[in-house]
Amino acid sequence: MPKVTIAQQILAANDAIAAEIRQALAERGIRAVNVMSAPGAGKTTLLERTIERLRGQVSIGVVEGDIETSADAERIEAAGAQETVQINTRGACHLEAHMIRDALAQIDLSRVNLLFIENIGNLVCPATWELGEDARVVITSTTEGDEKPAKYPQMFAVAQALVINKLDLLPYVDYDIEKVKRQALAINPRLRIFEVSCRTGDGLDAWCDWLMSGPWKDA
Amino acid sequence: MPKVTIAQQILAANDAIAAEIRQALAERGIRAVNVMSAPGAGKTTLLERTIERLRGQVSIGVVEGDIETSADAERIEAAGAQETVQINTRGACHLEAHMIRDALAQIDLSRVNLLFIENIGNLVCPATWELGEDARVVITSTTEGDEKPAKYPQMFAVAQALVINKLDLLPYVDYDIEKVKRQALAINPRLRIFEVSCRTGDGLDAWCDWLMSGPWKDA
Repeated sequence: MPKVTIAQQILAANDAIAAEIRQALAERGIRAVNVMSAPGAGKTTLLERTIERLRGQVSIGVVEGDIETSADAERIEAAGAQETVQINTRGACHLEAHMIRDALAQIDLSRVNLLFIENIGNLVCPATWELGEDARVVITSTTEGDEKPAKYPQMFAVAQALVINKLDLLPYVDYDIEKVKRQALAINPRLRIFEVSCRTGDGLDAWCDWLMSGPWKDA
Repeated sequence: MPKVTIAQQILAANDAIAAEIRQALAERGIRAVNVMSAPGAGKTTLLERTIERLRGQVSIGVVEGDIETSADAERIEAAGAQETVQINTRGACHLEAHMIRDALAQIDLSRVNLLFIENIGNLVCPATWELGEDARVVITSTTEGDEKPAKYPQMFAVAQALVINKLDLLPYVDYDIEKVKRQALAINPRLRIFEVSCRTGDGLDAWCDWLMSGPWKDA
């Protein structure tokens, strides 16, 4: 059997599980956000700051994806998430829907209104795999260089929102933020863009407003 | 046929091509370095600075891997590489040996003594794919967070050298460089570690000395 056919079958099976997850979450009134980025762009830190800000307004659950370690899940618990579960992929470069299904079986979904799925740090592979989310968010940071949308277009094409993080480091790097926004919008004109610093808190209000109110699709 | 068997066959076929490349390069006296990192850690910038420093001492060729665009190959040519060739993987998350074989057929190897292969920006998938290189180098940067070796161990296990880049940004980030070195050496005790700033030039002499003199294996 040709390799490409096998790959298509695997993706189709994944998408079927993702559709089941999406329906199960919708029935419970839970909205899910798949958070993706290169390693070190600030996924966990953005979730920590978001959980701290939304405490008391919404009940947050987090599925933490990592190749190894439970360090991020421990940070997320400390930040105050209601429910946290760690997936270790043991080498795999992205999360798949069956991993989310198994992870969700381990937490109390009745305690969750907003579910974050923190994907593996990788700007390529996670873009192809639906996880049952309502929205996909890609984070890029000012220290990564300002040609990331052009070089990794698929990730920016599938996202509803782009968070440009580490605004506080802008004075120390060569980074043309307007170029990044132009590149990203050329790939995906409906992308919502948030410019933030998780260190100083700049821009996090607008990001949290979007999380709480939407619209998430075609905004 | 089970998926894992197919995957093993694909990897075995890749490694056979990699062995051919390694032998062909050795017969020509060319040493090859596979440069890997997360997106934005500074692969292209490190190669630019290296080419500028080694000009007149060694004749450098570069195989540039990107999902899209030829922006990096243009930077490398401007820096003064003797031969440059761009591979666009159109979505694939890593380079494979057959791509290197095809790319090398497009350049004049008689003009090259030292060949750099700049892999796709990805801390996961490239670690599994041999390309016929003599040494693998992983770059991590001070803005990516200081738990990368623990979270992406395979990449650090397969490398001969680790370059910790963006030393100039250390004052502005929370990054424990000694922790990174400890984590990396726990995974791979024979890893050579270079602390550099491609912006200020700090540490690049030691890195260039290693490139020129080795030993690259088991150093």
